[in-house]
Amino acid sequence: MIKIYGKNCVRAAILNKSPLKEIYFDGSDYKLKQILEENNLKYHITDKSNLERMFGLNHQGIGAIREDYKTYDLTYFFNEEENKRVLILDGINDPQNFGAIIRSADAFGFKGIILGKNRSVPISPVVAHVSTGALEFVPICYVNSLNNAIRLLKENNYWIVSAEAYGNAKVEDISKDRNIALVIGSEGFGISKTIIKESDYVVSIAMQGHVNSLNASVSAGILMEKFK
Amino acid sequence: MIKIYGKNCVRAAILNKSPLKEIYFDGSDYKLKQILEENNLKYHITDKSNLERMFGLNHQGIGAIREDYKTYDLTYFFNEEENKRVLILDGINDPQNFGAIIRSADAFGFKGIILGKNRSVPISPVVAHVSTGALEFVPICYVNSLNNAIRLLKENNYWIVSAEAYGNAKVEDISKDRNIALVIGSEGFGISKTIIKESDYVVSIAMQGHVNSLNASVSAGILMEKFK
Repeated sequence: MIKIYGKNCVRAAILNKSPLKEIYFDGSDYKLKQILEENNLKYHITDKSNLERMFGLNHQGIGAIREDYKTYDLTYFFNEEENKRVLILDGINDPQNFGAIIRSADAFGFKGIILGKNRSVPISPVVAHVSTGALEFVPICYVNSLNNAIRLLKENNYWIVSAEAYGNAKVEDISKDRNIALVIGSEGFGISKTIIKESDYVVSIAMQGHVNSLNASVSAGILMEKFK
Repeated sequence: MIKIYGKNCVRAAILNKSPLKEIYFDGSDYKLKQILEENNLKYHITDKSNLERMFGLNHQGIGAIREDYKTYDLTYFFNEEENKRVLILDGINDPQNFGAIIRSADAFGFKGIILGKNRSVPISPVVAHVSTGALEFVPICYVNSLNNAIRLLKENNYWIVSAEAYGNAKVEDISKDRNIALVIGSEGFGISKTIIKESDYVVSIAMQGHVNSLNASVSAGILMEKFK
């Protein structure tokens, strides 16, 4: 079970017919009330202070207890469909970034997100909230070894495109008529050397300025938009 | 005075010769120590728990008391330089988003960021930290009225480009040989109608998927990259 909260997040779960065990609602949002009733969902009427106690400051008047989000096997991404896009996150630890990335993945038609089990942020209430419900629609796949996953993706006709500041490939030069697995690294440590070695391309985002690096969710968004 | 913390943020302040009143350092990072000494900066040696008490969980071993970041007048953006880029944020409230946007503005050569005084997030320790020091280099300008600011920008040869989901202009069709003021709205309410009315173009980012909207810092990053 996982606590979810916030208008967009709970509405997405309802519209996706996801299994909600209990719903707590302050009754203030007319549209949400309508959606709850149209879907014949029972809910507890409660007040803001109780919602805050249960779901934290960002409840926006509604929270629910949801069955855990389903996670997916890597084989989910191996099908006959062409020009698939998947995102690989090598060591993302910040739930805010992970949530924003899930939202971008949904917006740009990525089939799912693959993360290493050990060094990655888990699915959490914050991740679900920041994804504004996109977590309902973007398959998440945790694997034991990203190196193995990349090998299997290559065997299944994916091209591996890693994003690093020193990359010398241009996105424009990479054919979009392929299955592409885009790899984004952690902010502190980038992408592991073994993954870079297995990559078909290493791309970078041209930057000027002093700081010369972007927030991981911004990098991921810019590149997913280019590969969409 | 403002508290700043985190390796990137404090390092940027040092390298920018910004006025630091007191520096608190746990001595653990060799490179930081070297930079402090090269710049003849005195610092208090302290421990993690004291840093945490003073600067919060994300101190990364260093914090400082800095003079307030300088803010700029709108006239700063009125000069003879050609093809200038500025970013206007219409009602951004989240410090994480604001910090990430400052970082992108630095990376993509934007001359500064203009915000309305009333409905916007102030410069804060969190904003500075999330900007990873980019706040040292990106002029921030708070104005009483965004409508007035936009009128003045137009009089000074800026084209106003607003970003909204319903926009029908394409970034590719907008000449880059101009001064461009890019307007990003708040996540909840978008861009105000009066600003849309004054805009030369309203652009959108093509999206698919279910949620159909992006985190504000991701939208801003994608569009700044396209206009860079």
